Amino acid sequence: MTTPLATETERFENATLAEMEAFAAAVLPSYVRDYYGSGAREEQTFRGNLAAWGRWWLVPRMLVDVARVSLATTVLGQPIALPIMVAPMSLQKLAHPDGELATARAAAEAGTIMIVSTSTTTPIEEIAAVPELAFWFQLYPFPDFEETVGMIDRAVAAGAKAVCLTVDAASHVDAKRRPRGGMHTPDWVTFPMHPAHAQDTLATLDWPYVERLRGRVSVPIVLKGILHPDDARAAADMGIPAVVVSNHGGRTLDGAITTAEILPEIADAVGDRLELLVDGGIRRGADVIRALALGARAVLVGRPFLWGLAVAGQAGERHVFATLRKELEQDARSCGIADVTRVPRDLVRISRLGV
Amino acid sequence: MTTPLATETERFENATLAEMEAFAAAVLPSYVRDYYGSGAREEQTFRGNLAAWGRWWLVPRMLVDVARVSLATTVLGQPIALPIMVAPMSLQKLAHPDGELATARAAAEAGTIMIVSTSTTTPIEEIAAVPELAFWFQLYPFPDFEETVGMIDRAVAAGAKAVCLTVDAASHVDAKRRPRGGMHTPDWVTFPMHPAHAQDTLATLDWPYVERLRGRVSVPIVLKGILHPDDARAAADMGIPAVVVSNHGGRTLDGAITTAEILPEIADAVGDRLELLVDGGIRRGADVIRALALGARAVLVGRPFLWGLAVAGQAGERHVFATLRKELEQDARSCGIADVTRVPRDLVRISRLGV
Amino acid sequence: MTTPLATETERFENATLAEMEAFAAAVLPSYVRDYYGSGAREEQTFRGNLAAWGRWWLVPRMLVDVARVSLATTVLGQPIALPIMVAPMSLQKLAHPDGELATARAAAEAGTIMIVSTSTTTPIEEIAAVPELAFWFQLYPFPDFEETVGMIDRAVAAGAKAVCLTVDAASHVDAKRRPRGGMHTPDWVTFPMHPAHAQDTLATLDWPYVERLRGRVSVPIVLKGILHPDDARAAADMGIPAVVVSNHGGRTLDGAITTAEILPEIADAVGDRLELLVDGGIRRGADVIRALALGARAVLVGRPFLWGLAVAGQAGERHVFATLRKELEQDARSCGIADVTRVPRDLVRISRLGV
Amino acid sequence: MTTPLATETERFENATLAEMEAFAAAVLPSYVRDYYGSGAREEQTFRGNLAAWGRWWLVPRMLVDVARVSLATTVLGQPIALPIMVAPMSLQKLAHPDGELATARAAAEAGTIMIVSTSTTTPIEEIAAVPELAFWFQLYPFPDFEETVGMIDRAVAAGAKAVCLTVDAASHVDAKRRPRGGMHTPDWVTFPMHPAHAQDTLATLDWPYVERLRGRVSVPIVLKGILHPDDARAAADMGIPAVVVSNHGGRTLDGAITTAEILPEIADAVGDRLELLVDGGIRRGADVIRALALGARAVLVGRPFLWGLAVAGQAGERHVFATLRKELEQDARSCGIADVTRVPRDLVRISRLGV
Repeated sequence: MTTPLATETERFENATLAEMEAFAAAVLPSYVRDYYGSGAREEQTFRGNLAAWGRWWLVPRMLVDVARVSLATTVLGQPIALPIMVAPMSLQKLAHPDGELATARAAAEAGTIMIVSTSTTTPIEEIAAVPELAFWFQLYPFPDFEETVGMIDRAVAAGAKAVCLTVDAASHVDAKRRPRGGMHTPDWVTFPMHPAHAQDTLATLDWPYVERLRGRVSVPIVLKGILHPDDARAAADMGIPAVVVSNHGGRTLDGAITTAEILPEIADAVGDRLELLVDGGIRRGADVIRALALGARAVLVGRPFLWGLAVAGQAGERHVFATLRKELEQDARSCGIADVTRVPRDLVRISRLGV
Repeated sequence: MTTPLATETERFENATLAEMEAFAAAVLPSYVRDYYGSGAREEQTFRGNLAAWGRWWLVPRMLVDVARVSLATTVLGQPIALPIMVAPMSLQKLAHPDGELATARAAAEAGTIMIVSTSTTTPIEEIAAVPELAFWFQLYPFPDFEETVGMIDRAVAAGAKAVCLTVDAASHVDAKRRPRGGMHTPDWVTFPMHPAHAQDTLATLDWPYVERLRGRVSVPIVLKGILHPDDARAAADMGIPAVVVSNHGGRTLDGAITTAEILPEIADAVGDRLELLVDGGIRRGADVIRALALGARAVLVGRPFLWGLAVAGQAGERHVFATLRKELEQDARSCGIADVTRVPRDLVRISRLGV
Repeated sequence: MTTPLATETERFENATLAEMEAFAAAVLPSYVRDYYGSGAREEQTFRGNLAAWGRWWLVPRMLVDVARVSLATTVLGQPIALPIMVAPMSLQKLAHPDGELATARAAAEAGTIMIVSTSTTTPIEEIAAVPELAFWFQLYPFPDFEETVGMIDRAVAAGAKAVCLTVDAASHVDAKRRPRGGMHTPDWVTFPMHPAHAQDTLATLDWPYVERLRGRVSVPIVLKGILHPDDARAAADMGIPAVVVSNHGGRTLDGAITTAEILPEIADAVGDRLELLVDGGIRRGADVIRALALGARAVLVGRPFLWGLAVAGQAGERHVFATLRKELEQDARSCGIADVTRVPRDLVRISRLGV
Repeated sequence: MTTPLATETERFENATLAEMEAFAAAVLPSYVRDYYGSGAREEQTFRGNLAAWGRWWLVPRMLVDVARVSLATTVLGQPIALPIMVAPMSLQKLAHPDGELATARAAAEAGTIMIVSTSTTTPIEEIAAVPELAFWFQLYPFPDFEETVGMIDRAVAAGAKAVCLTVDAASHVDAKRRPRGGMHTPDWVTFPMHPAHAQDTLATLDWPYVERLRGRVSVPIVLKGILHPDDARAAADMGIPAVVVSNHGGRTLDGAITTAEILPEIADAVGDRLELLVDGGIRRGADVIRALALGARAVLVGRPFLWGLAVAGQAGERHVFATLRKELEQDARSCGIADVTRVPRDLVRISRLGV
């Protein structure tokens, strides 16, 4: 792998994630930066996601021996070294020529799961070939059901441990900072998993579809994009093993509630009946801790890995992992948390003072 | 119809409503822009209206087949193609020479109801002649009761399906950005429905007046400007079939509660006893969905049509309709709403986090 | 009376109170502007007062005949033409050579009560000579009790209908925008009612003092500066006929609760046992209505009269009265209030949406 | 003592604490200014501390004789002249060559307790030699238990009346405005109490450690850094006589709840079972009063003394004491508080209006 920004490698050694975003913005073409960095319409949800986690103030415990902090957990029985997974993100070669391969190598190195997007710009078999990588396959179904099953079979054959069905993309919406009428990707970018856009199909997904799909898929199906507690309950009733509480990073429904706000209510609704994952605006180790306190088993982080990827490929993503891990470990310690699988609900609370 | 701003026609093809407002501001004389665009006094309610809808966060449902989204509903039994009506707006010829005719054509084309203002600058018979148009007549009563009845008879004879009695204009108030002491309209603007200003009369309106008027009018009477739940209850008790929850777009009582805030309480007060319409700061498809969730059957949109009218007459208003329809359809889909007549109350909630 | 700013007289004809403040700021020496216009320390309470009233949103009633709006009320049995009194303000000659005389003439003309400050720069007998004037005497006690009684006797002999004992000036505090160590008034300013500063005495006031004073005063004693409901209760228990809910315009205790916030709780505490007056940040007719809804019988307005005084003496204060009266009448009408002595509590509410 | 900034001495005579901060910023090297003035990471807690106290609005009592206000109280039985102690602060010689000695002299002069940091740059025996000084010793334990006990013995031998064990420094974290990777102190700065950094040890502290330490220490042990009510309860259960409710001035866990927010809940949890001290953003006399109302017996103030120290050594710190004392006395008086040991809980409340 060539690192096109060798001097950056040094520069970002101590960079915060906010600085990584700035570095990435400096090296990306503006249409890519805006494609990654924008939200739907007026970006209320996009901005809300970023603001919401911090509204959960931490009430740490003291005098707990935290010399050793265990960051490891499991998701669907799969051990991961830290409670952070790589969210599915399309079009990674727009950020860096190494694209999804760099991300996969960084995820494998970090000991966690990468969720490979249907809109991957690298064939899933090449990604799967990265040593030690555990990955899931994010699914945008095709109009033809058998073709969809075929694509899943291909992913599972490559080693995908689960299918992550995106359920919150029923509608394409414009974004304030994205070219209207959709983005035209360069010719050299190809989509090896999906030959054509299937937006119309996404609007037809329903619970029977999930049931039908499950009958044909040998790995667990995870639903990504759940926001209403009753939908989480329905998933649990159906025996879905995990859902991702998500508003699609604010990219689909502007005004959709922030995940930081709805997560605890979903946790109350489903208890231990399924595993909760969450994404949306998680940018700090403390945000991960907040999500765990509110009922998540692990979080998905997306855009920060694109920043790392843009800045220096795998090395940049490694730095994103290192930064989040460092913050997570430090702040778990400061919270009196010696094991991230045991974060109590009363660690976080909303300010009555309105600060 | 001549389109004075042909180049604008292309420019606004993908314009958001916010951009339409900016385009309109650029082509209107400042006194017209400020007359349309201002609120009473310090504009607390005017601004509050715009901010309030977004405070209702959306908690969408997933895995509903929304391939087809039905936008149609009925108001007082009249089918409309989408739950958006054209609010009564005076002085439309100040925005464009085609004035109310352009608006009527756009409304007819969109398949919805236009509410024609007493202060129309086009005779109601000319408006009524627009093919396929369904319209109501907004009433500012005259000092002489029989003259008022005569004006209503004229409107009904022309085809008005309902009388929309404005009840919240008891007082003329100054506006921060309007010329003090009232606006002087150009000579060429005439008011074919009302020969003289009747402000004093509006302060005398009371429930017996409504009763008396109803005895003389053959179409339903709708009350526009209700904000207190007890007033909505009184209207229901009297058998009024519909009210418009409205603060007059922030143009009368500065400090009046926003309609987004009071609507659900009014809905609780009256249940299904009358049909609720609402206006005030609705600028996005998602705002329409919010209003429906909170108990409205349809919404009234006003100023955005004036922006469209100012920019390109009927074509501009067509674009406003198209934009709202597109957003409404997309966001209904994202919310798991396949039929706008069935939007559940729990789709919206206030943030406890204060984002 | 000479009007030094004749051209201003025209300029302010349509001026809002905010514009009057700006005009006054332009003509006053900065030390006077800052003395009048500042609050204690960091001005949290000073600014809070101004912001708080607007947080009470109006929920108006419709279809009430408001052709005639009665603004008249009584305070301690004394009829006043509108529910606005002139707050006690010291040092009025710093604003204009006519000083308290201009204020008295404006109050008499408006048909309301002026509260004359102990720190008046005009002898009370000269003020009392203004035809038709009803006035109260605001008291800062002297160290010597008999001297205090003597000063009250002088005020009562001149015609004062009540003594307004300021109870919230126990401590002198610095203000952000006032010269530190106190202001040096020009030589030509004299204090005909009090020969020396009596700050220390104010810290000794207690309930027995009020009792003792009452035994020697033939007119009612009103307590100005009550903020705690228990103090209002104590006053009612003692038979005090009225209190002014006040934080001294934010000039004494920075961080003191705003009167708009505490007023309704005080009203709940005392019911009809005493008359409630209130001041602090009331700048609009709608604020007066809010105060009445929350339990006040009338309000005190202070600084705006100083602005009027500074701009054009009596004529300026007349304009302040006219502006407030016009707004009050218009907004009462818009609220469906035909009589300001009957403003219902449910006219106002706090926004749950946080707008 | 030489005063390097003699001209400043005059300049700050009437300075507010905010002005002192500005003066200090002007004379300190930027790395020192930022070391003192920064918080962890994004400084949410650092800023929250400053904002939170003012959200407790004051509801003062009137007609209390406050001619004499008693500021004296006791902490662990030790009389102090005002309810303000000097928080432990490291590295004071970076602010001024007199360092901890100037602080000790100012504290002794003010009649209160100084808490000497383990990271003092002046030997504790020299500090202890300041006449009339009462001091505590703040403890960061060493890896070797006996060495820790030895250091405490040395402090107690010098006269320390209590050991203040910091329990909230389990993790070193980066700060937005501090040099990454830690600060390099100049060669001439030495740490006479601790030969080496013991960060790792701090992560191992637990309740048994406190118990063990207590068995070897002849003075009371106070826990500094408690935020969770259950931890305060545990301390009380163990017989700890006092805790400092603290988030380390926002320097350790960013996002930690503000002390102004959590203090009353801790007070409810422990009642009179132990003495509560509090720090974090207290910058005004009124903040001290708020803290006392919410259950604290006294407060710790830190950074303002560093500002005073930086500006003019002991004279600067004297000015900080004088300013706080003056404000405290004035505002206690304005609140109707004649004795700071009796500040009622209902003196403070949160605004429902959101001002």
